[in-house]
Amino acid sequence: MQSSDQTGIVNLAAKLELFDALWTPKIVGALNGQQVKLAKLKGELTWHTHEDEDELFLVLEGSLTIEMRDRAVHLSRGDMFIVQRGVAHNPVSKDGASVLLFEPAATRHTGEVMCDRTVTDQEWI
Amino acid sequence: MQSSDQTGIVNLAAKLELFDALWTPKIVGALNGQQVKLAKLKGELTWHTHEDEDELFLVLEGSLTIEMRDRAVHLSRGDMFIVQRGVAHNPVSKDGASVLLFEPAATRHTGEVMCDRTVTDQEWI
Repeated sequence: MQSSDQTGIVNLAAKLELFDALWTPKIVGALNGQQVKLAKLKGELTWHTHEDEDELFLVLEGSLTIEMRDRAVHLSRGDMFIVQRGVAHNPVSKDGASVLLFEPAATRHTGEVMCDRTVTDQEWI
Repeated sequence: MQSSDQTGIVNLAAKLELFDALWTPKIVGALNGQQVKLAKLKGELTWHTHEDEDELFLVLEGSLTIEMRDRAVHLSRGDMFIVQRGVAHNPVSKDGASVLLFEPAATRHTGEVMCDRTVTDQEWI
């Protein structure tokens, strides 16, 4: 369930204050079958692929590298990057990052991979 | 056509430097049938409705009021708001704002309304 305030206004910085857990995306909005999520990252997640979903990363704080099989992109605050469906990737952040994610509601956290960091039931904040 | 650099990294501040035109959304990304756009706003657009599309506004700079028939929301930098499909709205910015929009690729700029500010062929930057 959505739990933004009654106005429907979602302040991203205020939402980021509500949680500390790493690699645990929190849902902050939904539209047109897609969801907007916030996540805090440090270290690395795991190599995985979303076969049917493109996934958008927008860096709000810190920096993030998205490793892909043939290259990597280094993202800083204000940088946006879309991982195309079918592209294996591994998000890595040495110093930590807060990111906004935009992806279909059906997207599984770590794609076809299940690992100890996989979050299968993502919550609204 | 997409015209981000070869890396695919889209820096939002750098993209905002590329245009000055008000009320003229520029496409900076596409995924899952949706588009990410940037727009600069000042003054007001026009009352309109998107019957089949929810529309996300994220304020990157300045402030923005979204007038609706029964209320208005006042958004500042870092605030996100989703106008649900079917809800008549009018974006107003007295002092100016830069916003990120997220909406289906099929969304028409001013919904069912055509006015002198309507942009029917939005371009990539």
